[in-house]
This record gives sequence, structure tokens and C-alpha cells, in this order.
Amino acid sequence: MSIASTPEPPYYVAVITVERAESDDGYFEMAEAMDELARTQPGFLGLEWVYDAGQRAGITSSYWTDAGAIAAWKQNADHLVAQRLGQERWYRAYTVRIARVERDYRWTAD
Amino acid sequence: MSIASTPEPPYYVAVITVERAESDDGYFEMAEAMDELARTQPGFLGLEWVYDAGQRAGITSSYWTDAGAIAAWKQNADHLVAQRLGQERWYRAYTVRIARVERDYRWTAD
Repeated sequence: MSIASTPEPPYYVAVITVERAESDDGYFEMAEAMDELARTQPGFLGLEWVYDAGQRAGITSSYWTDAGAIAAWKQNADHLVAQRLGQERWYRAYTVRIARVERDYRWTAD
Repeated sequence: MSIASTPEPPYYVAVITVERAESDDGYFEMAEAMDELARTQPGFLGLEWVYDAGQRAGITSSYWTDAGAIAAWKQNADHLVAQRLGQERWYRAYTVRIARVERDYRWTAD
């Protein structure tokens, strides 16, 4: 994972926190496909994704120009299929939080 | 990791995305200590933390009543020491984003 390069605030973030079920069947293929599809959506700015296989927990943080872009992505037809499969197969629980980024700062080692 | 139980929006989130350096020396002890300390701070609502050892990448998502609570936590004396050690030892790069949560929703398997 690389840290996403995002513009000056304000912009929006969707933070998705996931508790995974036992099955990995098809999961990483779908996650990769959704990552690629998200990057083609209007208003997409960046995406960061970390998964801990031992804890079966993940956080996805995606960045968007505005809340409407997130709402449109949530309703994307292929994404709706992925969300339904996730509920049936891969997720035990998840929380989605939509937030307006007001400030950010980055530090990089010399 | 468990998904944090947070109140109805609005509240604030600090999303910290980290690219780690090679050294783990003291890192997990400090991360655990900061997790415990954060939970005692005024305005703290919850914290979620996922780390992928293979990718040496992590995302920490912490929740707070307001932006002032995040600013106060950033200036906490012990936390300042941890931040400095992080820059010296454990981090290659990180980005902090402070955002106001406007909407959230949770799904849990039956």
C-alpha cells in the first residue's frame, strides 16, 4: 500500500472498517476488481487499504471530491453486486463512515 | 480489532496512514501504550487499528467528539514523545487526515 496523494482539503473520505468471516473464497479477486473500478469513478481521489489476515480485520480509506461522488459509487451496479456478495460470504460486520476532510498533513523521512 | 461503537454523527475522525520502516524495535509496545493512553483522553470515542506486517503498512482510525479533542491529543506530552520516536525509528512516511463524520452505517451478519 502507498499513501494516497490527495489535494488540499476540503475533500471527502469513506472509512470502511471490516470484521471478516472465515471464507477467503473469491475475496481478494473481488477486492482487487473493486479497487480498480473505484479508480475509474468520477470524483475519485485515492484509496488506501490494509488487511490483517491474522485478525481478519481490515480498513479501507478512500478519498473523493465530494459526498455525491461517494453516494454514486455506492450505487454502482458492479459495486452493488460486490456489496451483496460481501454480506453473503466475506463479512461478519462492517461500518462505513462518510466524513469531510478539513485538515491533513504528511510527514516523510528524508 | 473490533469495530468501534460510535455515537450518532456528527463526530470527528483522525485517519492516520503509515508506511513503516524496517525496525520493529519497541514499536508494538509503544503502539499499545498510545492506544491505552488515547482511550483516557477527553473526547475520545473509539479507535480502530489494522497493520499489515508484509506490506509494512497500517491505518489507524480514531474517533473523537470534536476537532479540539484531536488537537489536544496531538499535543499530549507522552504522545509527542511517541510521535518523535516514530519519526526517528519506525516510520518512513505517514499522512494524518482530520475529518468531520457526517454519516455512518453499520451492517452485522445475523
